[in-house]
Amino acid sequence: MTIRIALIGFGKIARDQHVPSIAADPHFELVAVTSRSGETADGVPCFADLGALLAAMPGQIDAVAICTPPDVRHAIAADALDAGLAVLLEKPPTATLGEIEDLVQRAAACGQPLHASWHSQHAPTVRAAAALLRGTVVRRLRITWREDVRKWHSGQEWIWEPGGFGVFDPGINALSIATAILPERLIVRAADLQLPGNRQTPIAADLTFAGEDFSAAFDWRHQGDEERTIEIETTTNRHIKLGDSGASLFVDGIAHPVEPRAEYPSIYARFAELVAAGQSDVDVEPLRIVADALLLARRTMVEPFVWTAGE
Amino acid sequence: MTIRIALIGFGKIARDQHVPSIAADPHFELVAVTSRSGETADGVPCFADLGALLAAMPGQIDAVAICTPPDVRHAIAADALDAGLAVLLEKPPTATLGEIEDLVQRAAACGQPLHASWHSQHAPTVRAAAALLRGTVVRRLRITWREDVRKWHSGQEWIWEPGGFGVFDPGINALSIATAILPERLIVRAADLQLPGNRQTPIAADLTFAGEDFSAAFDWRHQGDEERTIEIETTTNRHIKLGDSGASLFVDGIAHPVEPRAEYPSIYARFAELVAAGQSDVDVEPLRIVADALLLARRTMVEPFVWTAGE
Repeated sequence: MTIRIALIGFGKIARDQHVPSIAADPHFELVAVTSRSGETADGVPCFADLGALLAAMPGQIDAVAICTPPDVRHAIAADALDAGLAVLLEKPPTATLGEIEDLVQRAAACGQPLHASWHSQHAPTVRAAAALLRGTVVRRLRITWREDVRKWHSGQEWIWEPGGFGVFDPGINALSIATAILPERLIVRAADLQLPGNRQTPIAADLTFAGEDFSAAFDWRHQGDEERTIEIETTTNRHIKLGDSGASLFVDGIAHPVEPRAEYPSIYARFAELVAAGQSDVDVEPLRIVADALLLARRTMVEPFVWTAGE
Repeated sequence: MTIRIALIGFGKIARDQHVPSIAADPHFELVAVTSRSGETADGVPCFADLGALLAAMPGQIDAVAICTPPDVRHAIAADALDAGLAVLLEKPPTATLGEIEDLVQRAAACGQPLHASWHSQHAPTVRAAAALLRGTVVRRLRITWREDVRKWHSGQEWIWEPGGFGVFDPGINALSIATAILPERLIVRAADLQLPGNRQTPIAADLTFAGEDFSAAFDWRHQGDEERTIEIETTTNRHIKLGDSGASLFVDGIAHPVEPRAEYPSIYARFAELVAAGQSDVDVEPLRIVADALLLARRTMVEPFVWTAGE
């Protein structure tokens, strides 16, 4: 049975990732879009919002993928679940832990599938790394995520606003890989945040976790070659390194075979399984770790951030 | 059967509240204390730490109440659970959500009772207010917690340190009452924090929650008469007001009978029930709300805080 799905919110991520992934997956048919701009996919009807869509197409939608900014997701997802639809929320699922917990409770109450996905958990080496680490004891974890915010988020003011996550926006991708592959829960013990004097969210963060030698360094001020690596050593002296956001994997220095990169198609394959089984799958751990980092945060003020040197 | 209990950490709260509550409750016998200073209750053996206590008194302890600052609780509680002891953690249970979730998992794995208590939930009117609100729909919530930090925390530098909670230290008491009496989950939508320029934690916070008109105002700079009230209006125009941290209750303006104030004795009565039943009871909602407020926080810098005008 084909799952008739609508995209709620039609920005860059919907166009670039969701539309082609749905088109390539025989389990799904894209039957509607909502967007404020009126923009939509080729030949797909567009509505102002979920309410208008449901009124115009009663009984013709099975599921929604919510592609709006995080701050409005909870209300939309709650309405969709109440209307009897399955719901897909890509990272971060909601703006807060309370919002996602409320959705979990609603999904259970109405028997609708809810999936909170983390695209980086679908990176080509995550499954292999998790299998390698199963049953091991990790002695050292070093997450290094250094990139240039000007390259990836040019002009996106929301990342600096309250609730905008700052450097935790890419950092949460790293955390989502780490929680997927590590055999034990990651528990934050300290968090040093660097906050531009003119912004509300951090531009860099150093986290220390419980364990012998577990840490993460996120930095958005990096120029030149970017780095998105996770290095792990086990108590049996196995050394595992995921590079390029999980696109490469080295075990004791030797390259490990990787699956082709297909993060969003893999998300949709998983969502189709959940809808068919009538089950939910919600992983709150990466968001919980960010919240815990903020509970423990030591903030240092750093120089104001401007998008261009001449700004 | 008497529960042989040890107090881990022996500061003001242990002396003033835990010792007399245990002494007055026939379910418990205080058999040991750990303290770094060597201070203990009359006639009760004292040890440097939990490890020393367990080595000296094997098989002679059934439970511990952990009265240390939050940052070291997780490790102590994990050791106690692993040693086969029941564990009581008074507010806040741990420094982070990950730590308490880890303890919940450990307690379940080893079959030991774990109780995370919130003393304000044992205030004299909380049970009555919860009963009055059951099955209602709340239209308006206004939490007001205004007190003088210099009166309650004079010289306690840790409240301003990372993880020290700042004004959320009293504010979480208000939140713990609210979550205990409200029929629906409190979901944070916005948080305005006021941060002294020389401190790491907020001195005042205004929270807005999902719902028609739900808010909280915490302020630690208040001089004169303190206020710790929760006002609620339901859609059936019932007006409920808890005053004095839940010590008084007015329903439509009329004083409601209240139980005698006995917060810590009530905590121990509940803990005795849990130990007898072999069950855990862990409420993370108040800590989750603080974490969510920090995820959404808009911070405004305010004047530096000093303990005395002449400092």
